[in-house]
Amino acid sequence: MADAPGNRRYIIDLLPSERIAGVYAVSNAQLGRTRNDKPYLRCIVGDRSGEVTARMWTVDESLLASLPPDGFAYVEGETQKYQGDLQLIIQHIEPADPTPEQMRDLLPVAPRPIEEMFAELQAVLATLEHPAIKALAQVYLADKFLMDQFKQCPAAKSAHHAYLGGLLDHTLGLVKLAAAVAPLYPGLNRDLVVMGLFLHDLGKTRELVYDRAFGYADRGELIGHIVDGAIMLHDKSQQVMRETGQRLPANAVMVLQHIILSHHGLPEHGAARVPMTPEAILVHQLDNIDAKMYMSLAAARGPKSKKDLGGNFTERLWALDTKLFKPDPLA
Amino acid sequence: MADAPGNRRYIIDLLPSERIAGVYAVSNAQLGRTRNDKPYLRCIVGDRSGEVTARMWTVDESLLASLPPDGFAYVEGETQKYQGDLQLIIQHIEPADPTPEQMRDLLPVAPRPIEEMFAELQAVLATLEHPAIKALAQVYLADKFLMDQFKQCPAAKSAHHAYLGGLLDHTLGLVKLAAAVAPLYPGLNRDLVVMGLFLHDLGKTRELVYDRAFGYADRGELIGHIVDGAIMLHDKSQQVMRETGQRLPANAVMVLQHIILSHHGLPEHGAARVPMTPEAILVHQLDNIDAKMYMSLAAARGPKSKKDLGGNFTERLWALDTKLFKPDPLA
Amino acid sequence: MADAPGNRRYIIDLLPSERIAGVYAVSNAQLGRTRNDKPYLRCIVGDRSGEVTARMWTVDESLLASLPPDGFAYVEGETQKYQGDLQLIIQHIEPADPTPEQMRDLLPVAPRPIEEMFAELQAVLATLEHPAIKALAQVYLADKFLMDQFKQCPAAKSAHHAYLGGLLDHTLGLVKLAAAVAPLYPGLNRDLVVMGLFLHDLGKTRELVYDRAFGYADRGELIGHIVDGAIMLHDKSQQVMRETGQRLPANAVMVLQHIILSHHGLPEHGAARVPMTPEAILVHQLDNIDAKMYMSLAAARGPKSKKDLGGNFTERLWALDTKLFKPDPLA
Amino acid sequence: MADAPGNRRYIIDLLPSERIAGVYAVSNAQLGRTRNDKPYLRCIVGDRSGEVTARMWTVDESLLASLPPDGFAYVEGETQKYQGDLQLIIQHIEPADPTPEQMRDLLPVAPRPIEEMFAELQAVLATLEHPAIKALAQVYLADKFLMDQFKQCPAAKSAHHAYLGGLLDHTLGLVKLAAAVAPLYPGLNRDLVVMGLFLHDLGKTRELVYDRAFGYADRGELIGHIVDGAIMLHDKSQQVMRETGQRLPANAVMVLQHIILSHHGLPEHGAARVPMTPEAILVHQLDNIDAKMYMSLAAARGPKSKKDLGGNFTERLWALDTKLFKPDPLA
Amino acid sequence: MADAPGNRRYIIDLLPSERIAGVYAVSNAQLGRTRNDKPYLRCIVGDRSGEVTARMWTVDESLLASLPPDGFAYVEGETQKYQGDLQLIIQHIEPADPTPEQMRDLLPVAPRPIEEMFAELQAVLATLEHPAIKALAQVYLADKFLMDQFKQCPAAKSAHHAYLGGLLDHTLGLVKLAAAVAPLYPGLNRDLVVMGLFLHDLGKTRELVYDRAFGYADRGELIGHIVDGAIMLHDKSQQVMRETGQRLPANAVMVLQHIILSHHGLPEHGAARVPMTPEAILVHQLDNIDAKMYMSLAAARGPKSKKDLGGNFTERLWALDTKLFKPDPLA
Amino acid sequence: MADAPGNRRYIIDLLPSERIAGVYAVSNAQLGRTRNDKPYLRCIVGDRSGEVTARMWTVDESLLASLPPDGFAYVEGETQKYQGDLQLIIQHIEPADPTPEQMRDLLPVAPRPIEEMFAELQAVLATLEHPAIKALAQVYLADKFLMDQFKQCPAAKSAHHAYLGGLLDHTLGLVKLAAAVAPLYPGLNRDLVVMGLFLHDLGKTRELVYDRAFGYADRGELIGHIVDGAIMLHDKSQQVMRETGQRLPANAVMVLQHIILSHHGLPEHGAARVPMTPEAILVHQLDNIDAKMYMSLAAARGPKSKKDLGGNFTERLWALDTKLFKPDPLA
Repeated sequence: MADAPGNRRYIIDLLPSERIAGVYAVSNAQLGRTRNDKPYLRCIVGDRSGEVTARMWTVDESLLASLPPDGFAYVEGETQKYQGDLQLIIQHIEPADPTPEQMRDLLPVAPRPIEEMFAELQAVLATLEHPAIKALAQVYLADKFLMDQFKQCPAAKSAHHAYLGGLLDHTLGLVKLAAAVAPLYPGLNRDLVVMGLFLHDLGKTRELVYDRAFGYADRGELIGHIVDGAIMLHDKSQQVMRETGQRLPANAVMVLQHIILSHHGLPEHGAARVPMTPEAILVHQLDNIDAKMYMSLAAARGPKSKKDLGGNFTERLWALDTKLFKPDPLA
Repeated sequence: MADAPGNRRYIIDLLPSERIAGVYAVSNAQLGRTRNDKPYLRCIVGDRSGEVTARMWTVDESLLASLPPDGFAYVEGETQKYQGDLQLIIQHIEPADPTPEQMRDLLPVAPRPIEEMFAELQAVLATLEHPAIKALAQVYLADKFLMDQFKQCPAAKSAHHAYLGGLLDHTLGLVKLAAAVAPLYPGLNRDLVVMGLFLHDLGKTRELVYDRAFGYADRGELIGHIVDGAIMLHDKSQQVMRETGQRLPANAVMVLQHIILSHHGLPEHGAARVPMTPEAILVHQLDNIDAKMYMSLAAARGPKSKKDLGGNFTERLWALDTKLFKPDPLA
Repeated sequence: MADAPGNRRYIIDLLPSERIAGVYAVSNAQLGRTRNDKPYLRCIVGDRSGEVTARMWTVDESLLASLPPDGFAYVEGETQKYQGDLQLIIQHIEPADPTPEQMRDLLPVAPRPIEEMFAELQAVLATLEHPAIKALAQVYLADKFLMDQFKQCPAAKSAHHAYLGGLLDHTLGLVKLAAAVAPLYPGLNRDLVVMGLFLHDLGKTRELVYDRAFGYADRGELIGHIVDGAIMLHDKSQQVMRETGQRLPANAVMVLQHIILSHHGLPEHGAARVPMTPEAILVHQLDNIDAKMYMSLAAARGPKSKKDLGGNFTERLWALDTKLFKPDPLA
Repeated sequence: MADAPGNRRYIIDLLPSERIAGVYAVSNAQLGRTRNDKPYLRCIVGDRSGEVTARMWTVDESLLASLPPDGFAYVEGETQKYQGDLQLIIQHIEPADPTPEQMRDLLPVAPRPIEEMFAELQAVLATLEHPAIKALAQVYLADKFLMDQFKQCPAAKSAHHAYLGGLLDHTLGLVKLAAAVAPLYPGLNRDLVVMGLFLHDLGKTRELVYDRAFGYADRGELIGHIVDGAIMLHDKSQQVMRETGQRLPANAVMVLQHIILSHHGLPEHGAARVPMTPEAILVHQLDNIDAKMYMSLAAARGPKSKKDLGGNFTERLWALDTKLFKPDPLA
Repeated sequence: MADAPGNRRYIIDLLPSERIAGVYAVSNAQLGRTRNDKPYLRCIVGDRSGEVTARMWTVDESLLASLPPDGFAYVEGETQKYQGDLQLIIQHIEPADPTPEQMRDLLPVAPRPIEEMFAELQAVLATLEHPAIKALAQVYLADKFLMDQFKQCPAAKSAHHAYLGGLLDHTLGLVKLAAAVAPLYPGLNRDLVVMGLFLHDLGKTRELVYDRAFGYADRGELIGHIVDGAIMLHDKSQQVMRETGQRLPANAVMVLQHIILSHHGLPEHGAARVPMTPEAILVHQLDNIDAKMYMSLAAARGPKSKKDLGGNFTERLWALDTKLFKPDPLA
Repeated sequence: MADAPGNRRYIIDLLPSERIAGVYAVSNAQLGRTRNDKPYLRCIVGDRSGEVTARMWTVDESLLASLPPDGFAYVEGETQKYQGDLQLIIQHIEPADPTPEQMRDLLPVAPRPIEEMFAELQAVLATLEHPAIKALAQVYLADKFLMDQFKQCPAAKSAHHAYLGGLLDHTLGLVKLAAAVAPLYPGLNRDLVVMGLFLHDLGKTRELVYDRAFGYADRGELIGHIVDGAIMLHDKSQQVMRETGQRLPANAVMVLQHIILSHHGLPEHGAARVPMTPEAILVHQLDNIDAKMYMSLAAARGPKSKKDLGGNFTERLWALDTKLFKPDPLA
């Protein structure tokens, strides 16, 4: 196969009339039908560098049935220009099961090594003071299946930290932010803030799919990571008692569930509850600040995007509801 | 004691300068302090017929410590007029544990016998067709502790069906409404609608307190009946598999949880999700229609309330965001 | 002419390079002008199966003047592919007056025979109990011109029941829904609900045009069916007294007008008044439930549309403000 | 009787322990019941200068039945101080029918003579240019019953021009404003603006009651002046054709009805339609400007009210959603 | 050069395959890159009559560096049809500095001579009565640099009065409107209204760029004309005292700044303050009325636009949030 | 006088029938009039511990004229109980000018010494790196008059840090928060954040009055601290150039003004601009986080307030739009 490590041709680099052969992520695979009623395949072919729309004009339906709508496939074809954009004409396609090595070429990954980030997070969790909360953290950390998902999962489909390991990266950033901010507010319970931040987005492991092009699982649409995070804590807290005999303080689980349920702040932003404790308010605020700083710095000070209009302002950013002024007048 | 059945003096009937002695519901018990720094007790004394504010001018703090802020007590005292309203001057108060018989005098109860309504509900649930859904209903019905709560719990603190047995009454009404409406819409899954309505408000058993003056439990404020209903179903569905070996259809639990999470319709009305299936939409609409008809008929056509201004319109009803025109021009 | 019954070629079935000749609905007929300043005709050519954009490159202005912007015409031409879509190049066009038989091929019609539905509706109206309300219904039913419009009119331009006879179909469905629901709420006046539902959308006969491609009449935009329905009732109630000598009960006309004015529920949804009687609230709720069930069942459980993406969710539905999960997990 | 012209004692001037005897406006007459179950009468007694709450401790029910809840009565009694405010203890009360002369003492009236304002308005209407619009204006002006109501009716219950003749005063002010503004906008149809302003609030004659304490009629609540104004025009335009044989231009009635229906601007402010013609937009804007200038000048520059706090700002004005800075720095 | 006065070829008149040569406004000049990685220039070429998109396929980067993103250039090229629209293929382009005469061909200008309008405005300002306000007006009028900008600046980028001299035209119109309206409201300070209107939009001279294609200056985006107008008045009022020794009345500057800050009415429409004086309310209302009449008359009664669909309604106008009915039924 | 340091009787400690004599803050001084038309004085008498309503029944108007509506006065009188609350009957009152020492007893002050906080703030400003920004900070710090106001001014009338020195305290807290958070976001300009936070609320020195009972100055209502902060920077930046010859980088003043104008985040929260740079976004977020943590910790974990209902929840907090759960389950 053509995509041996080292000489893989990334989609972002493709020119017109170029041949490709290799394993790619395939999404939105659908049967189209020409006016002459001939079936054809259309889909999106992508790797960690980007995506290109693709068409396969001669398909037999049994092959089609073997392709998942979203997944991975070995693809051979040739690029061409169409209405100003590049598209890919597929000559051959078959389902494929990428090796972990290939996987790293197919989906975007975190800028830092995942195990390094995870170790850093564990170090912060080791500073939890209350023994029962510490035990609860241990029960989560000992759940190898869940932690593997936690290390892989992106933090969002596209808005911010949208890469493998993004959930861990975002969680770690928040925990460090909390470490900086919490000491300024006496009266605040640091354990609840740190534990709340560790758990606040864990339900994303059930909300998102990330073993192929990032998207929402059906359960993500119908239940959502907020309620699923609360259900996971319901299970884990029973496990703590069952396994360690340790009794979580009265109200502790409820208050942590409340932090999870309220971390989006407002019902119209997805919160099942508005934050009603100082710790819940802080978790929401820090989550908000981190997302906004990530998005604004990326847009205004990050690498110049292709959409850059060349003036002093970015385009309107949907999530910030404004455009941004890019120049740093002191730089 | 003075409140032997048959000759109990209800609060609504009290005149000024009347002595009372008996078991009452006591709520909001608080220590006040006169300007001379003398402590006194203020609280609300109630029974199923209404409430009266009360003061006890000579208290010793040990007695006070023995009283719960909300609960039941044996009370002796005398009514007097104060600023146009009646108030009760307490001479003696001590915690009390009402008998079930006394309880019926202390909190408002459903107009129909509870077991009769419950039997009617069981009869509808017996018409469920899908065997696994039927098994799930059985697991709920077999949970005696939960069903006892379900039979006692009011449907709301005050808005509608605010009486012991109100949750059951409201649920039964909805299930009957569904039975009338569902046949008009082919394509709808009747089992999901009926089961969804049975479960939609079950979390209220954890949201409300109703073993004394109705109110919200701490968990009701911080988690709410919507999320707790979904957590209960999470547990019950595992119990079905564990106990009956019966496997619920893929997605069935998720879709029922979605109905529970979305039955308030909009996030700003408390829904954790907007309804995304025809069954979830119908459950929300029927719940809405039943609450609105209950409130509007009670206000416009019900027994004349004390607040009635005597004109053709009621006062503004908060939950309907309007006043109502009372006359039925054809009556 | 080519479109003799039996061998008409429907637009949905057209292939490229196919010749057509027959009577079609023509809408949005406009004069375009090429860069060389040559006039050309563009319009939309449709029948009950769908629409296709059309161009006629050689036009003389006198012909153009004879064509209505929206109406019917005998059209000859040939299809061709243009930017992936089919378009029609017209060679000959002239105004035409379709026969009733042709009409049925040109506009979508109700799935059930109109007279059958009308008879069913009359049967329900025959169960009205109050003699004056019954007399009022008779005055409406005896207005042949209005009833003919009522039988033809769609219930909406596009959202739901958008076919000839749709208004009747929707009204009948609501009246049957009321018959199922009303008995569950003692205190409700069934006559007002049934009569209110019969009248609630009658103003649509003035709001919409449906003797050609469905759309809004100028009066529909500037006055609307809600106010026009109230004006119609103003006239009809005077007619009752004039013709039958029967006096409508004081307030009865006012309350029925109020039902018409408030049946959209909220001012921002077009209501001139919020519902202020139990009957007005129920009419609004039933209208709402029926529209939502129609739309959600059609989208999630109806025949697979061309836009179907093949996954478990529909596209976002504007009128429901959400996408829908399609699978019935128990089916 | 004591209230012969010249020596009437106005309510605003009453001191404690003063006896009164005379005809007054009585509103909100209701039966109260003391704790000893003795009935008493409470009501509000008013004249054009203000209101005072009143009690009559000894009533027999037959007398009560003879009193309307809102109306006029001959009252004898004595004032007393109660909780810092004055109240009136009634010794004798009986229904009364005030003479027109007495009426002027009982309800607030316009600052200018009504017939003088009406003549001014007729003069402007005489400048209408289009003969059919002129004929339409004549049909309205010739309706003596309606014009008598128009001359008496206040423009609002309390917000602005809340006095007998207020509707005429407000309408005249608007028509003069239009005369000043319209010439600045060529292309605008002055006849439609002037006629639209004449008609825009005429439905208030059915919305409000003003033959006793100002309030809303039932029809005002359930239908409203906006829709009733459109219905009145529906009738009047038919009368024009019937009586004068003159045919109103196609669309003219529709466009005038649209002006009436849309003059509140937004649905959430009561408009049945948003303004869709330049003339409708101007009518709405002028109505808005006149109400806002009336309210702001009265509050900031008018006679000092009793509620005046003595600082530079007024209290928050509900209708303007702000408080106002009172000083004119150049004065 | 080809664009000698008299024989300039305006963009609106261009046909396909036509050669042009002359000075044009160039905006949005950007470097594109073909798939073969060859750089090309894309920009918009415009004059007072309209705009056309342009491409230059062979560019060297030093030339590009010499072009401003928005400005003026001498352009040679040829038109061609592309996807139904005209585009311009540039063969030669170089920066150019248009003469004032050429400028008048490049940007849209007011329909009336600027000096004539300015004289009219000065005449109104001469009627100011308070000597200090008059002195303040003189200080503004004597600022030649600012007045030159005021005479050139458009009133908006595109919504209304979007032409050179538009700000003056709009300001003059408002001042005349005030002169018509103010006498109807005794108690109003005419000087504050007239001066407030003169100053309300002066900050636009810093908000907008109009020495090339109209747009927002960076300062316009980040600070805005509302705050900049208040800062200008801060400076000018100090200048009055410095230069004339005349002391502005206590509060006069504050109240005029308040008028500037509040003239958009609501925070969500850009107001830094809601209007809190009768004069501020009137300034806001008149500004609103003038913009709405300008836009609605232009759309409904103005010259037929190319987008005109030929029916009785315009397209939806974003700024009015509605479409408009065009026919004047009395015309 | 009785209020020698050490034996001052604070208002919070007063009992009924207690005599006082001393200098107090007096606010809302107004002339009341009894029904017998006798004038009396009502006002609020306060010190740093609290407030009490007061009446003086015998006043001569000349004395009254000498009292400011808000200010300080020497007061003699006696407390009494009135409707359950304490009120003060004044026997003697005269304007007074408190010594600085007395002042500290009359208004609430910061918990830490002001000069200590100011030194800490200066230390942070000394870490500014860009020389021109440093020079700008020096110009502010060298403005002794402004800095004295800055050290005295509260941060708000009542919501948070409502004490003398509160503005400094709040500003210092934010600057420290920034020091903790900024290093986590590379790409952010720390100087702009620190300088922006120093300046963001400086306009409060003109918005609030705090030399007597805290309140809004007229200028605070009509202009506000946000615009005044931008005007102050306009002046100061010119002073930098004038006095130091140092030129601020192009755009630096504009960007700092933008931070001031946008620090409330949304127009409906008072922002004149939404934040459009990463630094402006961070300033807004930190200001928000600090206010919310201050308020939530004070309410949920602070000293028990008199309004405390004794349950687990606080009352609804207007500024947080929720009530708070008080217990820390781990404490």
